[in-house]
Amino acid sequence: MNKAFSALAQRTKEPPISWLMKTALERPNLISLAAGFTDNPSLPVKETTALLNDILKEPKLARSSLQYGSTAGDMQLRDLTADRIRREDGAAKGTPYLAERTVITHGSQQLLYLLTEALCDPGDIILVEDPTYFVFLGIAESRGVDCRGVRLDRDGINLESLETVLKSLEKSGELPRLKALYAVTYFQNPSAITMALEKKRGALALLKRFEKAAGHPIYLLEDAAYRDLRFAGRDVPSALSLPGGPDRTLYAGTYSKPFATGVRVGFGILPPDVFEIVTRIKGNHDFGTSHLLQQILLKALSSGQYSSHVERLQKRYADKAAIFAEAVRKHFPAEARWLEPEGGLYIWAGLPKLVAVGPKSALFQSALEHDVLYVPGELCYCADKTRRAPRNEMRLSFGSANEANLEEGAKRLGKVIASALRGR
Amino acid sequence: MNKAFSALAQRTKEPPISWLMKTALERPNLISLAAGFTDNPSLPVKETTALLNDILKEPKLARSSLQYGSTAGDMQLRDLTADRIRREDGAAKGTPYLAERTVITHGSQQLLYLLTEALCDPGDIILVEDPTYFVFLGIAESRGVDCRGVRLDRDGINLESLETVLKSLEKSGELPRLKALYAVTYFQNPSAITMALEKKRGALALLKRFEKAAGHPIYLLEDAAYRDLRFAGRDVPSALSLPGGPDRTLYAGTYSKPFATGVRVGFGILPPDVFEIVTRIKGNHDFGTSHLLQQILLKALSSGQYSSHVERLQKRYADKAAIFAEAVRKHFPAEARWLEPEGGLYIWAGLPKLVAVGPKSALFQSALEHDVLYVPGELCYCADKTRRAPRNEMRLSFGSANEANLEEGAKRLGKVIASALRGR
Repeated sequence: MNKAFSALAQRTKEPPISWLMKTALERPNLISLAAGFTDNPSLPVKETTALLNDILKEPKLARSSLQYGSTAGDMQLRDLTADRIRREDGAAKGTPYLAERTVITHGSQQLLYLLTEALCDPGDIILVEDPTYFVFLGIAESRGVDCRGVRLDRDGINLESLETVLKSLEKSGELPRLKALYAVTYFQNPSAITMALEKKRGALALLKRFEKAAGHPIYLLEDAAYRDLRFAGRDVPSALSLPGGPDRTLYAGTYSKPFATGVRVGFGILPPDVFEIVTRIKGNHDFGTSHLLQQILLKALSSGQYSSHVERLQKRYADKAAIFAEAVRKHFPAEARWLEPEGGLYIWAGLPKLVAVGPKSALFQSALEHDVLYVPGELCYCADKTRRAPRNEMRLSFGSANEANLEEGAKRLGKVIASALRGR
Repeated sequence: MNKAFSALAQRTKEPPISWLMKTALERPNLISLAAGFTDNPSLPVKETTALLNDILKEPKLARSSLQYGSTAGDMQLRDLTADRIRREDGAAKGTPYLAERTVITHGSQQLLYLLTEALCDPGDIILVEDPTYFVFLGIAESRGVDCRGVRLDRDGINLESLETVLKSLEKSGELPRLKALYAVTYFQNPSAITMALEKKRGALALLKRFEKAAGHPIYLLEDAAYRDLRFAGRDVPSALSLPGGPDRTLYAGTYSKPFATGVRVGFGILPPDVFEIVTRIKGNHDFGTSHLLQQILLKALSSGQYSSHVERLQKRYADKAAIFAEAVRKHFPAEARWLEPEGGLYIWAGLPKLVAVGPKSALFQSALEHDVLYVPGELCYCADKTRRAPRNEMRLSFGSANEANLEEGAKRLGKVIASALRGR
């Protein structure tokens, strides 16, 4: 590598998803169950057209939309955003659901990056779920941050496992390097698991217990990117709503997936000092998210268009999830294990332990030959040497493929798996 | 500061502009000649409305605009962008004016950040112009990068000064830490100076000469943010057009200032390995700039709307610059020194050496009391202990204030300066 490059550049690997996408492009008949793209036909074209025309026909608003805004974002949008999360949490007005704690970002992805910058030096540690969102692992790796895995139950993080990891860090003297626990708390990418409120409470309490030995706050970075994509069951309040939550929760949300991924607007609700630092760093990144994009979301929220779009979208994903789940049930061998989806974009399928499905496995090759692509689950495990990452899991998305392809994709993949199982 | 924060967080200072903006808000009758905002009345409201309706009425294009794109940006936009710079440079088709070398960013500011990440570890060195763009100094400081100042002539960097600095770095053994020379080459922020082609040639040659001792490439980071805002004189080709330029020039451009700062689309044209790393890091930041914003610019460029808007904008700034220059001529004391503007947004005024105009100076206070604000020039000098930064310069913007306020602002400030000169 070019010797003028920084250590960060040298640690920034090509993301696994690029390789998967290249692979997809090389096979025009391939059905991708790998992409994290959202459903194309239900994108809010009519709504966005109307919203934009509304914005641009008011001369003052039009000009302000086309001008710089402030780094933290439009005050009204921050206000509506904080209040929306408050109502979802069923909480009273006031701290922490305040515009002053809310920052608007270029997708919630940017917030994850900014927070990692704000908290972590190379050699610092973040705890992650086993498995977790692989792009977050890429960010951590690029910034020299060491990730440690915590076991995941069907209702979120395993608290005994969290305690064990914390104790081992205390014992090894590494606790001062621990900055946060990163958890994707709604329809987790990739496992589709939603974290129960009691688990959030337990996690906050455990982190708090070890803060004295750490010598500083240890945050719960709650990535709620899929929260609005629930189509069954009841919403769970965020960690912001819990005692001790406001000071320790870094809440990352987004309008990007539920509204339009091309209109990249995410947000964070953060303790004041974290808010201040994140906003400063964002000032260096870009002085603030495109004001025009912010106005689209502001108008969508205040007019009720956002809510009605999300409702339609939830129905759409419910239908696609049902079709896909039915197809997986029908075509996958009985040994496969997975959760009935209640939201999000994914089914996480576990095969019998001996069936490897990694990027170099015979099964992955065979799937490609049968023109179907999935995300090998092992890409979603951090490089934690204290445990071996499973090699028999796959992430399947029902987000972007259409109904026929969901059915056909499950069928092709089922065939490939059955054949691998027979071949054992 | 919170002990959980990273070294980067601790180094990320509140930008001086925030303080200036807060000051402005506290005085409702204040005329700000400080803001870098663009001209509000000439923002392309009608154009953007038409472009967006055109985009959103074509179902396929509409959906793709509202969906994720690729990290490096829309291929057609990258192609048009590279070709546009090629034509401006008067160069033949081919390297380096290629879509494969062109990355679309969330404003050119984001590219400056990404490049600093890609090249610099804490302790590394970047050479900057004396004075330079103060937000770049903030980025460098936050990332632990040491800036060294190079003298600026009326036609760009002083090559003897550049050579002296390079030699001193060689002598001190610091050359391996030197990664780039950062130069704002068109209507520089803040000095309004445009760099002559011969200066770019000389800078490239000098940097090349010291590469062997450095042990790696030393880049010319050419920030061309104001290039399209020329309203007099002839365009100067970029360093990309020079022998040795394609491999060593990091060209940062933007559509944000010439079109609409609320539609934040910037770009870079980069050597292949830098392109690759910057795109990877950008993937971790945000997976790519909002696809909708990119489509607006793509349509604006391909329809000719961008060119016709820029032409109108140039006339508008020419008028405002003339009004402002006339007012400065009329109201400032004869001792003040400044360049007749040919583009960009700024007049950089130098007062007699003994008149301090810094943020804590009596003159700055007096200006505030007379309800007029400017950017104290010393904020635009890096912390280079080998020279003393002048304290008698001010950046005045004719970008956002209207004609009456430009006239009145110059009058108020002239009075304040005259009174300070009398008081010496």
